[in-house]
Amino acid sequence: MKTGQEYTNSLAGLAREVYLLGEHVTDPANHPILRPSHNALEMTYRLAEDPSAAQLMRARSTLDGKEINLFCSIHTSTEDLIRKVKALRLLGQKTGTCFQRCVGWDALNALSSVTYELDQAKGTQYHKRFLDYLKYVQENDLVLNGSMTDVKGDRSKRPSEQADPDLFVHIVERQSDGIIVRGAKAHQTGAVFSHEIVVMPTLALRADDKDYALSFAIPINTPGVIHIVGRQASDTRKLEGGQIDLGNARFGGHEALLIFDDVFVPWERVFLCGEHEFAGLLVERFAGYHRQSYGGCKVGVGDVLIGAAATAAEYAGVAQAAHVKRKLAEMLHLNETLFACGLACSYMGAPTPSGTYLVDMLLANVCKQNVTRFPYEIARLAEDIAGGLMVTMPSEKDYRNPQLRPYIEKYLRGVADVATEDRMRILRLIENMTSGTGAVAYRTESMHGAGSPEAQVIMIGRQSDLMHKKELAKTIAGVGAHRTEAAQ
Amino acid sequence: MKTGQEYTNSLAGLAREVYLLGEHVTDPANHPILRPSHNALEMTYRLAEDPSAAQLMRARSTLDGKEINLFCSIHTSTEDLIRKVKALRLLGQKTGTCFQRCVGWDALNALSSVTYELDQAKGTQYHKRFLDYLKYVQENDLVLNGSMTDVKGDRSKRPSEQADPDLFVHIVERQSDGIIVRGAKAHQTGAVFSHEIVVMPTLALRADDKDYALSFAIPINTPGVIHIVGRQASDTRKLEGGQIDLGNARFGGHEALLIFDDVFVPWERVFLCGEHEFAGLLVERFAGYHRQSYGGCKVGVGDVLIGAAATAAEYAGVAQAAHVKRKLAEMLHLNETLFACGLACSYMGAPTPSGTYLVDMLLANVCKQNVTRFPYEIARLAEDIAGGLMVTMPSEKDYRNPQLRPYIEKYLRGVADVATEDRMRILRLIENMTSGTGAVAYRTESMHGAGSPEAQVIMIGRQSDLMHKKELAKTIAGVGAHRTEAAQ
Amino acid sequence: MKTGQEYTNSLAGLAREVYLLGEHVTDPANHPILRPSHNALEMTYRLAEDPSAAQLMRARSTLDGKEINLFCSIHTSTEDLIRKVKALRLLGQKTGTCFQRCVGWDALNALSSVTYELDQAKGTQYHKRFLDYLKYVQENDLVLNGSMTDVKGDRSKRPSEQADPDLFVHIVERQSDGIIVRGAKAHQTGAVFSHEIVVMPTLALRADDKDYALSFAIPINTPGVIHIVGRQASDTRKLEGGQIDLGNARFGGHEALLIFDDVFVPWERVFLCGEHEFAGLLVERFAGYHRQSYGGCKVGVGDVLIGAAATAAEYAGVAQAAHVKRKLAEMLHLNETLFACGLACSYMGAPTPSGTYLVDMLLANVCKQNVTRFPYEIARLAEDIAGGLMVTMPSEKDYRNPQLRPYIEKYLRGVADVATEDRMRILRLIENMTSGTGAVAYRTESMHGAGSPEAQVIMIGRQSDLMHKKELAKTIAGVGAHRTEAAQ
Amino acid sequence: MKTGQEYTNSLAGLAREVYLLGEHVTDPANHPILRPSHNALEMTYRLAEDPSAAQLMRARSTLDGKEINLFCSIHTSTEDLIRKVKALRLLGQKTGTCFQRCVGWDALNALSSVTYELDQAKGTQYHKRFLDYLKYVQENDLVLNGSMTDVKGDRSKRPSEQADPDLFVHIVERQSDGIIVRGAKAHQTGAVFSHEIVVMPTLALRADDKDYALSFAIPINTPGVIHIVGRQASDTRKLEGGQIDLGNARFGGHEALLIFDDVFVPWERVFLCGEHEFAGLLVERFAGYHRQSYGGCKVGVGDVLIGAAATAAEYAGVAQAAHVKRKLAEMLHLNETLFACGLACSYMGAPTPSGTYLVDMLLANVCKQNVTRFPYEIARLAEDIAGGLMVTMPSEKDYRNPQLRPYIEKYLRGVADVATEDRMRILRLIENMTSGTGAVAYRTESMHGAGSPEAQVIMIGRQSDLMHKKELAKTIAGVGAHRTEAAQ
Repeated sequence: MKTGQEYTNSLAGLAREVYLLGEHVTDPANHPILRPSHNALEMTYRLAEDPSAAQLMRARSTLDGKEINLFCSIHTSTEDLIRKVKALRLLGQKTGTCFQRCVGWDALNALSSVTYELDQAKGTQYHKRFLDYLKYVQENDLVLNGSMTDVKGDRSKRPSEQADPDLFVHIVERQSDGIIVRGAKAHQTGAVFSHEIVVMPTLALRADDKDYALSFAIPINTPGVIHIVGRQASDTRKLEGGQIDLGNARFGGHEALLIFDDVFVPWERVFLCGEHEFAGLLVERFAGYHRQSYGGCKVGVGDVLIGAAATAAEYAGVAQAAHVKRKLAEMLHLNETLFACGLACSYMGAPTPSGTYLVDMLLANVCKQNVTRFPYEIARLAEDIAGGLMVTMPSEKDYRNPQLRPYIEKYLRGVADVATEDRMRILRLIENMTSGTGAVAYRTESMHGAGSPEAQVIMIGRQSDLMHKKELAKTIAGVGAHRTEAAQ
Repeated sequence: MKTGQEYTNSLAGLAREVYLLGEHVTDPANHPILRPSHNALEMTYRLAEDPSAAQLMRARSTLDGKEINLFCSIHTSTEDLIRKVKALRLLGQKTGTCFQRCVGWDALNALSSVTYELDQAKGTQYHKRFLDYLKYVQENDLVLNGSMTDVKGDRSKRPSEQADPDLFVHIVERQSDGIIVRGAKAHQTGAVFSHEIVVMPTLALRADDKDYALSFAIPINTPGVIHIVGRQASDTRKLEGGQIDLGNARFGGHEALLIFDDVFVPWERVFLCGEHEFAGLLVERFAGYHRQSYGGCKVGVGDVLIGAAATAAEYAGVAQAAHVKRKLAEMLHLNETLFACGLACSYMGAPTPSGTYLVDMLLANVCKQNVTRFPYEIARLAEDIAGGLMVTMPSEKDYRNPQLRPYIEKYLRGVADVATEDRMRILRLIENMTSGTGAVAYRTESMHGAGSPEAQVIMIGRQSDLMHKKELAKTIAGVGAHRTEAAQ
Repeated sequence: MKTGQEYTNSLAGLAREVYLLGEHVTDPANHPILRPSHNALEMTYRLAEDPSAAQLMRARSTLDGKEINLFCSIHTSTEDLIRKVKALRLLGQKTGTCFQRCVGWDALNALSSVTYELDQAKGTQYHKRFLDYLKYVQENDLVLNGSMTDVKGDRSKRPSEQADPDLFVHIVERQSDGIIVRGAKAHQTGAVFSHEIVVMPTLALRADDKDYALSFAIPINTPGVIHIVGRQASDTRKLEGGQIDLGNARFGGHEALLIFDDVFVPWERVFLCGEHEFAGLLVERFAGYHRQSYGGCKVGVGDVLIGAAATAAEYAGVAQAAHVKRKLAEMLHLNETLFACGLACSYMGAPTPSGTYLVDMLLANVCKQNVTRFPYEIARLAEDIAGGLMVTMPSEKDYRNPQLRPYIEKYLRGVADVATEDRMRILRLIENMTSGTGAVAYRTESMHGAGSPEAQVIMIGRQSDLMHKKELAKTIAGVGAHRTEAAQ
Repeated sequence: MKTGQEYTNSLAGLAREVYLLGEHVTDPANHPILRPSHNALEMTYRLAEDPSAAQLMRARSTLDGKEINLFCSIHTSTEDLIRKVKALRLLGQKTGTCFQRCVGWDALNALSSVTYELDQAKGTQYHKRFLDYLKYVQENDLVLNGSMTDVKGDRSKRPSEQADPDLFVHIVERQSDGIIVRGAKAHQTGAVFSHEIVVMPTLALRADDKDYALSFAIPINTPGVIHIVGRQASDTRKLEGGQIDLGNARFGGHEALLIFDDVFVPWERVFLCGEHEFAGLLVERFAGYHRQSYGGCKVGVGDVLIGAAATAAEYAGVAQAAHVKRKLAEMLHLNETLFACGLACSYMGAPTPSGTYLVDMLLANVCKQNVTRFPYEIARLAEDIAGGLMVTMPSEKDYRNPQLRPYIEKYLRGVADVATEDRMRILRLIENMTSGTGAVAYRTESMHGAGSPEAQVIMIGRQSDLMHKKELAKTIAGVGAHRTEAAQ
């Protein structure tokens, strides 16, 4: 296992092609806009070092029994699945944002069972390759960028129907030692600070689209891989040199448009290549794990936001108002409902043929569907409690101006015994999480990460046994009773 | 363990003082209005006989290891708590209504730990008494009427402040061999077909109210116990001799006003008597278990309603309409969210000092709070899908009238290949569950059973560690950073 | 104008073919189940007699300027439309239920403009016939049963595609003096106590379906017209001879399946006959008026339910509890939002070519869409405040039993100075409105009357000028700016 | 009336003490962060010049009948109130944000009636002073900064109880020619580009607080007035020199902390001074008008956001997906419900003793209460439709980088015939409105502007005649019937 420091060092020399605000970034970990993202990822290492969290954050390898970082492990029991949810909640509480390491973990677990079943069905050898790769990941304690969402172009068309065939990542050439791939993946969370990229297809595919049925892993610094980091609301506040206005000065996330410009992948890192009938299964398994994840991480982030709202109320002198207490209770209720869903889809998990445990797919979809709703209501209630000052407050630069500071100290004070600066900090944290950089993780990612709401609507309809429920109803209603009577 | 038939026999001779619609009922099990309630309770015995369900519906006694009916068991693991939720869902699916045996079960488990802790704290001997009683219950496979909710009078006043001291059940006399109690309990689910009544206090009590700190068990036919059965919407349809208009002709529930008119209780059946400081704990434990229950039983009933709505859509030819599919998916989503909460509060349960497992109290409250909301929305969507015919349809008597029947057959037919009568039956089932006798169980009981919404609001606020969340937020926001800087 | 008494007399001799619970009803107005419906309709006459309400409830005829009952009037200004909403709210407040006279009124107004435009387009003479009929209606102050919803059979098929051609009302024969029609209309509100039936088509029609493009008026006692009255939850409580358990003992509604068994209609009462391209317009106009209506009547009924909940809270001693006050405020808020929508679609109304004013169609759909939601939430909150006693309370027969009465008096008392019977009455009223006969009007009719939710979804999408909104957005976003720059 | 250009000129020379990001701003109208706010305000002049909008945007003075800008007018009919709502919707559509001139307009109308009634009650001469001031405002077509919300300190304490007496604006000295005031107002929308500040108290006051019962007007450049402009999410994107990333490059808003550092106010500009019993009335009247305003302006902004979401769907090729159409219909429905409420509270307005028309206060509160909810749900649905790209998209600087541009052009294209840049622009507009500078206006201002949700809860409870509703319910339930019977 790596320490946090070792993680930092391991990336230091990597030559990645990273662009941000139109410029090439040579040292991403020390770029002020990207540093908080690095810090959040690093926390996944630091907590594994921390004796008080180690039991949650370390696991045993299924390959050799060695102790590994939890994020490199394969789930082999419902306890493992439950532990995942608890660990993610803890990390959400510690970082107040997305810590970006789940996607790769979920990719590993999805590939673990799908390569196995694919080999069983088709006589291929992908699972062996996968296990070799897993061993490499575990031994080096790597961050993987699980890479699923293609840019998709015209959504009414399938991959092979697009005007531009590159709008979904695909094979452009098969060579003796590997393949050449082209395309781009959007919304790549934590990409810049990953060691490896694990690509998967983005939807179920037909035979026509078999060149898009593709899964592979490559080092982040593979030639032809280009990152263009997306911008977030208020991102450049990180360039201003202050702390208060950031709300969450230490932690953040980033998402990149990841371009594969004719990238070479050696065969030993290819896990799916043309078997289109397994694309859908891989997507579904990955999505299942990742929909579970949100029942942990977003709950932890929600804990921070609820705590911030409660603190803001206290600082304004309204903590005891009946309506504030009820709003906080509602926020707590919604947040714990998400946690309950995360736990339930874990507890109801079951083994796949490979031995890897899979979450209950219906409940994982239910979990995620609630995540597309409740964080928005929690955020709305936080804004209600915070008051308008959250978005009309003078800047840190005003506060640091000696002429203005006495006015701000005087007039923005809430209860007399709390420092004005502390009140400003808490309000800025709420701003960060509801409409700043943190809102990307807490709101939009809750909406679209691991599948947009409509994806869950479809899966919930499909995975509930409606036929069985219809039979239950017909039995109780006595449907067909007249026929029975007639027959007697 | 009793069979269903033995259960029926066991009640046959019991002289209970039961009133319904102003008349004394001498044979409740054969009264058409009460019979469906008896059938639902009997199903808790029948399923334990059924080999396909026995694994779920039978348990081992913690007293002697003998096989017993699940409803007589004490929970000694989180698996037990999980099993409870699954068993209740199954029973909800089979009956489509409240099957009335959980309250007593939850009372047993609550008393199991509270009597133990009370003895530890005060040197009393209640737990031994309780275990003797538990043995009796298990050996005879009894239905217990868990009896908590006092009639309460003026809710702004505590028990001892009421104009009439009898508005909460209390001790009126202590005798050498037992006590005399007076008062009334409202909303007593399944009371008439219980073998025993287990009384508990209804709220936390102060020293002034110590005569109300009372828990005991008595046989249902104890002199002075009077049942006045409450009426439900459409209850007298059961007197009409038909089937269709009932929707659910076989199963139902009942609730009684249970009056204790100076009833004698022998000391060996008294489990709390004046120790007011333990009243709140007993209420809280019982409520915790019962709030968990709803994450199982109401989900099973929801399965039936969703199945009925899907069937109604199919019969009307709209099963493939996009809006119908989305509404069904939403109903499924809400229902499974309730199940997730039931499972989660079970899985996160923990042992009490007595060894009895208790649910996670925060999550049990979260579970119940969702139950006060989602069944209403599921019912609303069911009514949306069912269409107005559900409440404007001719009666079964019209349908049985040979002159009218051809018109009804012709004009109420939906898709051509489904019998009109079957369509009527399904619509009447939806009517039953959304605004008939079944709505008492599915709507109002979901709202108020095991505590009204406000009770959960208060508990959620109290059981969430808001202080911890505030610390998380302050750490991330850097609250106090200026003091740290100043100190350096 | 008729007085209430004259209205009663006018129906007394009418030989209608009415069935209820399988039996022919010879004197509907005096049948206990139907009497409350008659009373509610009669209130539309009584209020017009009442000097304090006359200004609202009387209008001037557009034909001859004579004073007429509001329900016979044609709208000729936005003030008329506003007045309608206010008058309906008042009637809802007075009856606590559906008073059943709007449907016919809305049919008159819809026909008023559509016959005019149809004549303009096709050179027909329907408008003249309509005006003659209007004159007859106004002079005799008649109740009209506006009759739109066909039974529809398989909803995935159009009228002419159904297995049975009679599942939509249609012409079976054209004769020199009139036409013969066959079919059935479902959910006919107030049918039995109407003087006349005004039939309209139920959906937009294609040329294939032209025999279904049909509108006409006939007296209620026309041979071949058969009413089968639908049953409602708890309907037979009205046969029990008491008052308390009814909740609303005086007022109610009814809906009938109305069968046209080869009924003759003279040409002078035919307003649409085969002009299929005008069927949709007639449906849309009628629906528009009727969706407006609900922004008045249901608000008035909501006033009663809110008042009942507030009274129940007072009687239980919880009127001052913070959560109760907030729940009442929420109920008030939702109810007034409905009223606001009713007023707004009226104020934004505009004249049609005939001079008849039409509501703003978009806002009328918005109004109704809210009506499919808010009454359910108001009802849920009323049940929350009422408590479980509402559905577990002993019956009036128990209360009248001298042996039981003292127990009920004693134990169901809330605050000491309110009579137990009064508390029971208020709780029964809430039961009536949320799951008894009144729930048919307040819940299901709010859902499906004047169009089910999906109908409004479609109309809102169609009537909002989305193209204009897209232009607004593009202008602000600077869409196309690069082209402009390129051109320079 | 001023033209837009004249408005710009009128502010050009004004020496205001404005701070932004810690620096003194000497030419606010040309500061890139503030310029869009100026543009939005200027639009209130430009539209009055525009012949197609002039009928809506111009009014007649009640003082002398001269034509004036609508924003300087006093409402003298319900038509005026309705027109206000329509005009504000139009401005919202044109600017996509808050245009900042309503607050002052609402202040004028509130003072118009309150000074009149105050004079009537106390024999003071404030109304005359007000009319003189109104004449000045109308003749010079001025922008007024309506200034209500004090900074408030500890909200559990009243003004005179605060540790620092200056936390509410108050009189510190009375002089022969005027008064000296001190304090600060938070959230001052549009302050920097106003000509005048009109101060009002922020809550109802007791005699102890009479020095806080204060209303007056002063020029924006009065000595001692200091503006510290608050920061908004993503505000510094305006400094970057591009257009795309702004979403709304032309229009925006600003809010300032406005400090009164011992400012002199001449008596002729004082409209309330110590008459504490009229403070509450002034607050209530102003709040009523301003709660109405939101039923216009936010609807117009909502139109833009709905249009943007529909465009984004079209650009991604999903405009015809069933779920997208339903989500758009829901957004339209919610937005029009707000409009309906704005119209209804206007139509139901009534004259005050001064002749100035006041909105219906209950409906205005209902309007605003919906505004605290629906824009959040509209924003959530917009984010759902927009997809994650909205927050992960490369920056304009990346797009302008010739090396990166081809990648972005290629991979962020949606449907083939729409320019990638146009898609980026629309997504950035949605980002702006949901979590950028525009979210301050569309979300937080909707929540807190004109009163936070709890303020409306209290007013709705107070202004609904609950007593009347209780009487309606009691009458229908027959409450008291037993007494009537007993008396007979």
